Amino acid sequence: MKDQPPIKLLFEPRSIAIIGCSTNPNKIGYKVLDNIIYSEYPGIIYGVNPKGGEILGQQLYKSIEEIDGDVDLATICIPAKFVFNAIQELASKNCKFLSIITSGFSEIGDIEEEQKIVRFARENGMRVLGPNIFGIFTSKSPMNATFGAKRIEHGGVAIVTQSGALGVAMIGKTETEGIGLSAIVSVGNKSDIGEADLIEYLITDDQTKVILLYIEGLKDGERLVQVLRRATKIKPIIIIKSGRSKRGAMAAASHTGSLAGEDNVFSDVMNQVGALRALSVQEALDWAKFVSIQTILPKGENAVIVTNGGGIGVLATDACEMYRVNLYDDQEVLKEIFGPVTPSFGSTKNPVDITGGASNEFYEQALQAAIDSDDIHSIICLGCETAIFNASQLSDVVSKKYIENKPSKPLIFSFFGGSDFEKGLFSLKGLGVPIFPDVYQAVSCLGAVYSNYRTLTYAEDYSRLAEPEVDIDVATIQEVINEVRKKGRLFLLVPEAMRVMEAAGIPMPKSYVAKNLEEAIQYAEEIGYPVVMKIVSKDIIHKSDAGGVALNLETREEVIDAYEAIMRSCLSYKPDAVIQGVELVTMIKMDEAIETIIGARIDATFGPTVMFGLGGIYVEVLKDVAFRAVPLTWRDANEMVKQIRSYPLLLGVRGEARKEIEGCVDVVMRLGKIIQSVRDISDIEINPLLIFEKGKGVLCVDARILLTPPQEEEVI
Amino acid sequence: MKDQPPIKLLFEPRSIAIIGCSTNPNKIGYKVLDNIIYSEYPGIIYGVNPKGGEILGQQLYKSIEEIDGDVDLATICIPAKFVFNAIQELASKNCKFLSIITSGFSEIGDIEEEQKIVRFARENGMRVLGPNIFGIFTSKSPMNATFGAKRIEHGGVAIVTQSGALGVAMIGKTETEGIGLSAIVSVGNKSDIGEADLIEYLITDDQTKVILLYIEGLKDGERLVQVLRRATKIKPIIIIKSGRSKRGAMAAASHTGSLAGEDNVFSDVMNQVGALRALSVQEALDWAKFVSIQTILPKGENAVIVTNGGGIGVLATDACEMYRVNLYDDQEVLKEIFGPVTPSFGSTKNPVDITGGASNEFYEQALQAAIDSDDIHSIICLGCETAIFNASQLSDVVSKKYIENKPSKPLIFSFFGGSDFEKGLFSLKGLGVPIFPDVYQAVSCLGAVYSNYRTLTYAEDYSRLAEPEVDIDVATIQEVINEVRKKGRLFLLVPEAMRVMEAAGIPMPKSYVAKNLEEAIQYAEEIGYPVVMKIVSKDIIHKSDAGGVALNLETREEVIDAYEAIMRSCLSYKPDAVIQGVELVTMIKMDEAIETIIGARIDATFGPTVMFGLGGIYVEVLKDVAFRAVPLTWRDANEMVKQIRSYPLLLGVRGEARKEIEGCVDVVMRLGKIIQSVRDISDIEINPLLIFEKGKGVLCVDARILLTPPQEEEVI
Repeated sequence: MKDQPPIKLLFEPRSIAIIGCSTNPNKIGYKVLDNIIYSEYPGIIYGVNPKGGEILGQQLYKSIEEIDGDVDLATICIPAKFVFNAIQELASKNCKFLSIITSGFSEIGDIEEEQKIVRFARENGMRVLGPNIFGIFTSKSPMNATFGAKRIEHGGVAIVTQSGALGVAMIGKTETEGIGLSAIVSVGNKSDIGEADLIEYLITDDQTKVILLYIEGLKDGERLVQVLRRATKIKPIIIIKSGRSKRGAMAAASHTGSLAGEDNVFSDVMNQVGALRALSVQEALDWAKFVSIQTILPKGENAVIVTNGGGIGVLATDACEMYRVNLYDDQEVLKEIFGPVTPSFGSTKNPVDITGGASNEFYEQALQAAIDSDDIHSIICLGCETAIFNASQLSDVVSKKYIENKPSKPLIFSFFGGSDFEKGLFSLKGLGVPIFPDVYQAVSCLGAVYSNYRTLTYAEDYSRLAEPEVDIDVATIQEVINEVRKKGRLFLLVPEAMRVMEAAGIPMPKSYVAKNLEEAIQYAEEIGYPVVMKIVSKDIIHKSDAGGVALNLETREEVIDAYEAIMRSCLSYKPDAVIQGVELVTMIKMDEAIETIIGARIDATFGPTVMFGLGGIYVEVLKDVAFRAVPLTWRDANEMVKQIRSYPLLLGVRGEARKEIEGCVDVVMRLGKIIQSVRDISDIEINPLLIFEKGKGVLCVDARILLTPPQEEEVI
Repeated sequence: MKDQPPIKLLFEPRSIAIIGCSTNPNKIGYKVLDNIIYSEYPGIIYGVNPKGGEILGQQLYKSIEEIDGDVDLATICIPAKFVFNAIQELASKNCKFLSIITSGFSEIGDIEEEQKIVRFARENGMRVLGPNIFGIFTSKSPMNATFGAKRIEHGGVAIVTQSGALGVAMIGKTETEGIGLSAIVSVGNKSDIGEADLIEYLITDDQTKVILLYIEGLKDGERLVQVLRRATKIKPIIIIKSGRSKRGAMAAASHTGSLAGEDNVFSDVMNQVGALRALSVQEALDWAKFVSIQTILPKGENAVIVTNGGGIGVLATDACEMYRVNLYDDQEVLKEIFGPVTPSFGSTKNPVDITGGASNEFYEQALQAAIDSDDIHSIICLGCETAIFNASQLSDVVSKKYIENKPSKPLIFSFFGGSDFEKGLFSLKGLGVPIFPDVYQAVSCLGAVYSNYRTLTYAEDYSRLAEPEVDIDVATIQEVINEVRKKGRLFLLVPEAMRVMEAAGIPMPKSYVAKNLEEAIQYAEEIGYPVVMKIVSKDIIHKSDAGGVALNLETREEVIDAYEAIMRSCLSYKPDAVIQGVELVTMIKMDEAIETIIGARIDATFGPTVMFGLGGIYVEVLKDVAFRAVPLTWRDANEMVKQIRSYPLLLGVRGEARKEIEGCVDVVMRLGKIIQSVRDISDIEINPLLIFEKGKGVLCVDARILLTPPQEEEVI
């Protein structure tokens, strides 16, 4: 296999070949060429059409063979059945990237032909975008090698879309919304190049300020997660993932042939890596626009609402809770800042209500006060049309405050009123002012900025939080697994699973067989009181009947008494019994513990993930579970445990003591480490992990471990 | 107190007086008169200004006294301190309604003056709108007695708003959105007239097609609930209730002085009565517009998505789940309907994807097929801009399908693309076509129509479902309470509470004292096995120590044996003990039951309500509770029990048997009946109500009952 070309050459090719240039302006092969020329692509263009001739001033080649130079990017618009041949010929032209617009491959069931193409391409140093796409646009080159809109406004938003139709429409939509693009790439069937490859380039591209992904299903979720971890620390990444609902996921799967995956896993993992998940396309575009113009991050979490209407103030307050925007709460400071500009019947509490009687001047002063205060980190500026709240003057205020003196903190505006009022104000949108008709829409954007803010704040101490790493004995675990593999089993027996748990440092009930009283005492102390003692004898099957069991032994003295009592009654029960000794076991007080379930598995979509939930009905009935992708930081594991709705049970409710949350988090980390380090394991579930009172530890009572089936040779 | 005037005269007054007409065009007293005249109000106008003179061709009166006729509606624009005097004078003019625009009453803490005004008004046959409002507009009269916009487009939407600033802005906003108004009423401080009064008129008004309420807090939630129950069966009612979040509720309370109430109670009760709760103002306006033009209800729940883009199809599928729109699922029928118009690489599954290669003609055919099919009850028509999907032709298709041949089922459109594409299509909005840029926005509207559909479908068998009424012995309950009142207590002791439970027919553990063996057997059979038997003797305190307790007696024989054993051991324990007999009690097997909590109380905001949840942490930690207002139908009670997330526990999980859900619903009904019938009770809580296996009943183990504090004389 040849070396793979750098992804940069897909975005900035030195030469493009269009395979299947058409003279018919309604054909894709014409539109692509037309768009490339119109976009003023500076590199070399090779148009190929078996008939030759000329289109759009471009001399055509009759065959790929005829091309007299190297091809960095080939855009393929010929019918599916001719594609493989074309690619074979392109290999001889040192071709680096294939943008296969042609459809009719895996999306209609022809997986084989698609795989054949990718295999050949990769073997010959080519990578494949698509098939079943509308092409690629990039402002850097510049190059519009799509069959979508001719004119694409340049700007800071890069879009990667799995849906072709939606992508083509988005090109138009972004223009309507005043959003400029740095790139838009259609990934279609994702036979080779996926979102992760593209993000890796886009985070290095200086023209791209924000990346927007439209995803229906994932092919290599694990790699995407890895790339997103890094990428979100560099640029905001917004994701629309359809197939949230069960039925939507089914529709997406039949539409794209890729797995939608469980939506709650997707959501949790995206949160973990700091990607911003939007509900709808509209919300995603709002966010993309806002974060691309709002490049100054807030310095802290204190947001303030300034309004001339109590009603929209309250609505915005609700929206702040929904979108996790924290309203500043120091009443004294607020009074000091806003007192001078708020009438007595208004409110300096947050929302700051300067009332419907307020004029533009008052509004301006209130905004200025908020801008000037170092205690306030972001401002939600709201306004209702009133008799004295004048649109044209208000526009001047907004212009002055926002455009002329670009403030050093995020401001977001929402104005509500009639057409003259809104027209006057919304014309400012064209000048880059973030104004929205609905307060929820406005606050949602600020919420996205704050999510991003938290990702970056978190990133700063990311490395610190990852330490100290949990220490597990991978060699021993691998040894256990190798033995199981040898026996041809795909699951571990209880003692095997217990050896894995032990090697991973996960606390389990302890058990020793003592041959005499001295040993019994020694083991009891080693296990820690209370302990259970049981007779060990082949001759005594019904241990309880024989008086061979003693529960809840809490002291050394009780162990001595119990030992003697057991010996006595067993020998009187069966005088000829051969006694090996007594077994000492940790006494488990189930009723003092909270049962949790901790699992780790190779998710079909997202790769190695960890899950956590409270035992029994919490997971099964209430679906109260949290997911994370590995590797985990301590912060990840902590947040995961805190995220579940039933978390208060671990904190202790109704006078109960706080539970050993730290021990629980530790086990989460250890399971994460196992699934990350030992790729033979496909599935681990500790059920239950008992969580005792704080200081009394946790206990893995049962663990189920499954192995990955033997792999067939990978094709690519 | 005089008779109260009919509310119709507020909306359709024969004469209006404007108290405080100003000659200054910037003053409210000028604007109101100007608006009344501009709106072509047909009745008599009396402008009052101490200086007299003329404004806008209207001769002014120097005093109210001078007015030479009856005043149906007086609009008051003078400073707060003069208002009471004016009202005294208006009483002599047979005034019926006061619209007090003036602010400076309870909203700034002056509750007393406001109450004084209302008291005087009510005593003199007048009712008060406001104070602290922008006035009232109605298209019926017509009359624009507000200081808001001059021009108000007439139409089918009536708005009642608690927020003045938001209301004024909404007048403008509705015009921008192409929404015509039948009325807009500002209720401000709601000192007298509230939403309920206004709804009672609006449901009779033939010009009003839909009612939209903006609420921050409630003053008489109980009456609103009663009115909404009826009203939603007549017209769709859309509610925006701010203060969803804790902080928002606080802001609303300080802004309006009325209680926001618990948001989850509000949501549950609004669902129960069939009101449509919108998240944001934008959503409410979208719904209002759609339901006012979409007057044909669907004939059933089968919705179909028709799209030329798989991506937006999947997004719409997700939105359908979110907004409770049911997608039709009969694959065979769908194939039959859409097969002929769907290309082979498209999908006839719902969403029906005719693919990006589809032309307008195909789209038209697919829509027509959906319109023609009786199996399909509503259609979500989606479109992405593509090279061959032409905006102007598509506009023609939409016009033909929607405007010319008004289909007999709901259709909703969402198109996504560039400005030319959208401009062409969105111009149809002006012609009444429901087109939205975002699929979530579109599906949200259809969801509102379906909620309304379900309310009406439910209403049809509402009366039937309310039967048979639960039968409780109100007289006995009242008697118990009277005794408690006499003792000056506000809570019931255990035996008193148990008497109430018994009178309400709620199953409790039974207990009898038997004087001899015959009675013991008789009571055991009456209680039902298993039973517990306990010695009854003043001389035996520690019953267990004396061998005076026998648990889990399952047969007549066991009762006989236990009786004899108890007598024997008690007499040997204390030979001189005087024995009264034995107590026979229901044996409660807690571990076989699920604990639930059922409560009923007079909610400060909503009046008598019932709550249901699973016991312990489910209510306390997980807040997994459902609320309903009384009176309850069987359907209400059933839905309430099913609504909680932990409901599967009652159905039986992990091989457990289904529980006695019917008995649980029955107790919900009975508690509802108590709180409805016995207004002395402020609070009942059964905790726990044990729910056994189906067929084995339910058991109220403990009940706490509180009484309302003695009422002071009501002022009004």
